[in-house]
Amino acid sequence: MLLIPQFPLQRVGEELERLRASAPLVHCLTNEVVQSVTANVLLALGVSPAMIVADEEVAEFATIADALLINVGTLYPARLMAMQKAVTAANAAGTPWVLDPVAAGVLAYRTAALHDLLKQKPAVIRGNASEIMCLAGEDAGGKGVDSTAHSGMAVAAAQRLARQTGAIVAVTGEVDYVSDGEVTWAIPWGHTLMTRVVGTGCALSAVTAAFVAGAGDRLAAVAAACAVMAIAGERAESACDGPGTFLPAFLDALYIMQPAMLRAVEE
Amino acid sequence: MLLIPQFPLQRVGEELERLRASAPLVHCLTNEVVQSVTANVLLALGVSPAMIVADEEVAEFATIADALLINVGTLYPARLMAMQKAVTAANAAGTPWVLDPVAAGVLAYRTAALHDLLKQKPAVIRGNASEIMCLAGEDAGGKGVDSTAHSGMAVAAAQRLARQTGAIVAVTGEVDYVSDGEVTWAIPWGHTLMTRVVGTGCALSAVTAAFVAGAGDRLAAVAAACAVMAIAGERAESACDGPGTFLPAFLDALYIMQPAMLRAVEE
Amino acid sequence: MLLIPQFPLQRVGEELERLRASAPLVHCLTNEVVQSVTANVLLALGVSPAMIVADEEVAEFATIADALLINVGTLYPARLMAMQKAVTAANAAGTPWVLDPVAAGVLAYRTAALHDLLKQKPAVIRGNASEIMCLAGEDAGGKGVDSTAHSGMAVAAAQRLARQTGAIVAVTGEVDYVSDGEVTWAIPWGHTLMTRVVGTGCALSAVTAAFVAGAGDRLAAVAAACAVMAIAGERAESACDGPGTFLPAFLDALYIMQPAMLRAVEE
Repeated sequence: MLLIPQFPLQRVGEELERLRASAPLVHCLTNEVVQSVTANVLLALGVSPAMIVADEEVAEFATIADALLINVGTLYPARLMAMQKAVTAANAAGTPWVLDPVAAGVLAYRTAALHDLLKQKPAVIRGNASEIMCLAGEDAGGKGVDSTAHSGMAVAAAQRLARQTGAIVAVTGEVDYVSDGEVTWAIPWGHTLMTRVVGTGCALSAVTAAFVAGAGDRLAAVAAACAVMAIAGERAESACDGPGTFLPAFLDALYIMQPAMLRAVEE
Repeated sequence: MLLIPQFPLQRVGEELERLRASAPLVHCLTNEVVQSVTANVLLALGVSPAMIVADEEVAEFATIADALLINVGTLYPARLMAMQKAVTAANAAGTPWVLDPVAAGVLAYRTAALHDLLKQKPAVIRGNASEIMCLAGEDAGGKGVDSTAHSGMAVAAAQRLARQTGAIVAVTGEVDYVSDGEVTWAIPWGHTLMTRVVGTGCALSAVTAAFVAGAGDRLAAVAAACAVMAIAGERAESACDGPGTFLPAFLDALYIMQPAMLRAVEE
Repeated sequence: MLLIPQFPLQRVGEELERLRASAPLVHCLTNEVVQSVTANVLLALGVSPAMIVADEEVAEFATIADALLINVGTLYPARLMAMQKAVTAANAAGTPWVLDPVAAGVLAYRTAALHDLLKQKPAVIRGNASEIMCLAGEDAGGKGVDSTAHSGMAVAAAQRLARQTGAIVAVTGEVDYVSDGEVTWAIPWGHTLMTRVVGTGCALSAVTAAFVAGAGDRLAAVAAACAVMAIAGERAESACDGPGTFLPAFLDALYIMQPAMLRAVEE
């Protein structure tokens, strides 16, 4: 594997400053398990979440929102139909949307649905190694909703998937990698305690949607989303005793994170 | 705007004492995002929550429960049908019900559903300024699920909506106002960190349902519900570092709040 | 009532050690209110949760998972059909499944559904006194989702239900009792603050499924699941100020619990 450069902290700060100033409205069609933590992560960052799920409402709302998240964690036909309508409306309105392909490759129904959604031109795809490798056409052998492969093993798949789809692709794990198919950044921060709290990955996809809303440079926006969550994870870890006290500390860290502070840290 | 008197702390204490003694059972038909925090807020206050959602069960349960909450945050046809059945059964049984009109006016489908529900005589309507102004027939321009108007701007709309519907109307924000169309109270406590945690408004509607169960004076019951939540918010704010540590502190504050303590505080 | 022996702490430690080493994948078809806390409890223990809910996916996933949880808290027809498919597939694959009969006896629809599910041979049934007495054919008069009877009053019903169904039956409350119809254990630890946080009982059923996965002695596995949750509850209570700070402390206690520590405590 080639050496992949680290995304600069100064640019994380610039993107965070832009996010805080714009306070986007993010339409989340996400899974049943993580709706609450997703909303709390967005609110901590000053973003407005809206979980609008009805077939009757998603198209109207996709034109109001600044970005759309599609997460297939607890997929079923009625919700899938609403997702397809929301995506069509978002594309018509020029609203960027993010795809979180939870457990791609593990189950046939969602894998087929994901391949259909892929054709609808997501602005971003954010998944773990197994999921990204599956969407790129490799067999990665995921087990349940967790990846059995390391993110580093999926860098080439992420780059290929980005070129195939035109999306920015983020493959997340111990190190996160973000690519547009040409340029690839590494985001090395984070803490393993994040894997012991449900929804941190799903919430990252929502945060990615928030950063991509109105972004001039989508690759930088996605890398900054990964960096903000990873850095908050590191800070929370030093203020907690386990996964229970991690989550409150993590939300606080997102809330108090200062762009100026991030720029100052950079060597 | 006329000067609106503050609801007396002594009466908050009396209503809280009544709530703690009666420990009502509250049937919640609420949105997908906030079910967990709603249940935890009710449990912290000693109230029994029950989230019964099936078409097949709601009518039977509405006659067992002491109050019913209807929140349209994540509305879709099957859930709306269950809500209508629950409301009809609650009315037949004399069980009071509370309407939380999330995002009224923003989307056509739910706005139509809300105007239908309004005809079914809710005991209480609890919303933000945009939502209350919409139900009262004014265009308030809400964005997403958050109000773009201040609660003070909606006092006249709340009073008119109360007279139109016979419900107690609570419009909540930095200051909460509660009116039966004749008498109006202000509830000035609270903290802005509450807007950075998902579900505090939705949970307030559930708490309102709990206070209204078996209440002799429904106006006082609703004002007390607003006051208890706002005072707990103030106390939690002084014990937390951000929105993450706010929520645990808020639940603790609800749990330990003493009626006698509230009466003693009053000047 | 006969004197019922306490389940030995040493065996709790042995079962916990086995759980940590095997890190099972638990398929949860549980209620809308508790999905997040259920996932976080399992993750804190090192177990992989997966909430797969679609009719189209449950049968395929039931053969991948190491155990299955069925909880009827927010039952409706589409979810019930998915549950029945998942149970059929789990039985065909030899995957053990746990039944949590929330509010059995309170509402006709779910009570009928539960009697149907009972015929499908759950490996474990975990409920409160009212629920277990209802399934065993006694009228226990539950109110809402909380039991009105003490767990000690339901020991005979639990033993009879175990003999009738071939399942291990756990009736939980201030003291938990676990029986296979012949041998019965008491689990005396725990703290009443657990009843002020939504989902601790539902999460226990999920933890029971995790312990039963690959267990040599299912009675011991279920007793250990109850003991681990109760002991974590006691420890969390000493580190918290109320139900809000209880939950983070409880998850931390599950995360740091050491099998060796438990074995050493035993007198």
